[in-house]
Amino acid sequence: MPQPIHQEHMHRNVKEWAAKVRQGDVRAISRAITAIENHAPEAEELLREVFPATGQAYLTGITGAPGTGKSTLVDRLAAYYRKRDERVGVVAVDPTSPYSGGAILGDRIRMQGHAGDSGIFIRSMATRGFLGGLARATAEVALLLDAAGKRQVLIETVGVGQDEIDIVRLADCVVVVLVPGLGDDIQSMKAGLMEIGDIFVLNKADREGADRLEEQLHAMLSLVMPHDGWHPPVMRTVATENRGIAELAETIEKFRKHFEASGERQKKHVEHWKNRLVEMVESRLLEKVLGGKEGEAKLRELATEVAERKKDPFTAVSEILKGSGVDR
Amino acid sequence: MPQPIHQEHMHRNVKEWAAKVRQGDVRAISRAITAIENHAPEAEELLREVFPATGQAYLTGITGAPGTGKSTLVDRLAAYYRKRDERVGVVAVDPTSPYSGGAILGDRIRMQGHAGDSGIFIRSMATRGFLGGLARATAEVALLLDAAGKRQVLIETVGVGQDEIDIVRLADCVVVVLVPGLGDDIQSMKAGLMEIGDIFVLNKADREGADRLEEQLHAMLSLVMPHDGWHPPVMRTVATENRGIAELAETIEKFRKHFEASGERQKKHVEHWKNRLVEMVESRLLEKVLGGKEGEAKLRELATEVAERKKDPFTAVSEILKGSGVDR
Repeated sequence: MPQPIHQEHMHRNVKEWAAKVRQGDVRAISRAITAIENHAPEAEELLREVFPATGQAYLTGITGAPGTGKSTLVDRLAAYYRKRDERVGVVAVDPTSPYSGGAILGDRIRMQGHAGDSGIFIRSMATRGFLGGLARATAEVALLLDAAGKRQVLIETVGVGQDEIDIVRLADCVVVVLVPGLGDDIQSMKAGLMEIGDIFVLNKADREGADRLEEQLHAMLSLVMPHDGWHPPVMRTVATENRGIAELAETIEKFRKHFEASGERQKKHVEHWKNRLVEMVESRLLEKVLGGKEGEAKLRELATEVAERKKDPFTAVSEILKGSGVDR
Repeated sequence: MPQPIHQEHMHRNVKEWAAKVRQGDVRAISRAITAIENHAPEAEELLREVFPATGQAYLTGITGAPGTGKSTLVDRLAAYYRKRDERVGVVAVDPTSPYSGGAILGDRIRMQGHAGDSGIFIRSMATRGFLGGLARATAEVALLLDAAGKRQVLIETVGVGQDEIDIVRLADCVVVVLVPGLGDDIQSMKAGLMEIGDIFVLNKADREGADRLEEQLHAMLSLVMPHDGWHPPVMRTVATENRGIAELAETIEKFRKHFEASGERQKKHVEHWKNRLVEMVESRLLEKVLGGKEGEAKLRELATEVAERKKDPFTAVSEILKGSGVDR
């Protein structure tokens, strides 16, 4: 338990911090993201403080296999929004293998082109090393950027795992990026990705095979039920040459208006918060029941007994719950 | 609360049912799997009853993209074990998109070749429609087949999502199937899949491009750290012609002996049960806190308030926990 005085002190600091975040102060935002990544208690306090100021940002998720040119596309889209004087936040979730560690932060460097522009905030996050899950951390960072007044928040992920699909699902609009020649065989594409796309982008559209890929895409999309009257369009871009970027931004805007008019956006937000609340409840309960060193030790002991067939898993679960006082 | 008499009746029935499962009675096993799929309370009772008899089976996970010929491979491997008079259980997890529904049970029909052989039990499971998650259901079915005396349990999944990686992780030995021409571009393969493979199979090895794929594979594998002295080998098979099957089975056996000798298998089982216990605790707590119609209604109400920024999510979580009596 923290001391009341310390608590009071923390509250005051958090209020100041929150005020700075809302003003778009880059250092305050960076510090907040680090706190979110570390699942530090002050991150919760801060998010609670800024929460009423959120809900203004439009979240666009951009996903696709490695090599599709997502980063360049996101970069150009960000530049487009900046030219129209919209404040932009970018969260780039970089892929890491579960074992080899270390994020491929690679070409984030290109983003340095925006250096000195305080109207844009860019942050890379690695797939690994987040306490409490990457989807949680990404959602919280998006919320923070929203509070910081970024009206356009772009979430870039590699569309490979369930984790990344969870991330992209928190977006208001999901853009799936494909490229001719690479993921040529649409069959090998994750079925789920096909169905979460609100807009499809055929990037590097000047390459051979673009027409065939577009045909395949249309054929696949004709099988997908339009949701609420929206037929996912296929856009062509050559991001490196800035071609098709304005059209893409306009289509995202069209999608936004379509869904705001139909009330679908509000429905999606309620669903989103249902899932988020369940995750938060889950992690709080687990922390309570199996948190700390003792919880970990107890868990290991019981798991060993079960592995040795000295105890069945259902009995072990009852013991964990009873021991924590959660179960009667 | 069930009546004591009913409870007593259920206990007696479950004991009889468990005895039949242990004898390998096909109807008893089928009924049990249905109960597991439906997350019925008697499934837990039954699994608790048979649990001490488990831990004898060797679980081999076989995964790969669609079109790699996994099913045929599993089929031939099962036939190989049957010839050596080992009892075999097969759980084939079929892919389904999250929206379109309906399992692609497709070529399971070939498995009918084993019809009339009581020493083999085959069950297909769809990715969708399982209460409490597919990984849980698959793990429980594997446990059941173990109790039913199947010494070789083959778990076949499509290696695309996190869900399927979770499934394959419960196996003692993971076989990753690749095929020339299809997933030719190793880069596009899930990084995680590369690292969970204990044995790699190059199926349809009579096809063009097999040598190149094998080279690529070896190059990739040279980057992966050998775990506990095991260097994942690359095997060549032509499952449709039964070529390489015996060699594959022998390699699986070699892997088994390697890990039993090193004590690694026991360690893996403890890790496995740690994860399983956490999942079970999680789902029990959630059921307690947000279960039933009231829980669902409360959750929706709070999520709506949060979506409308009338309440912050942290306050909503506290209310859920307090309301349930779980939090002080």
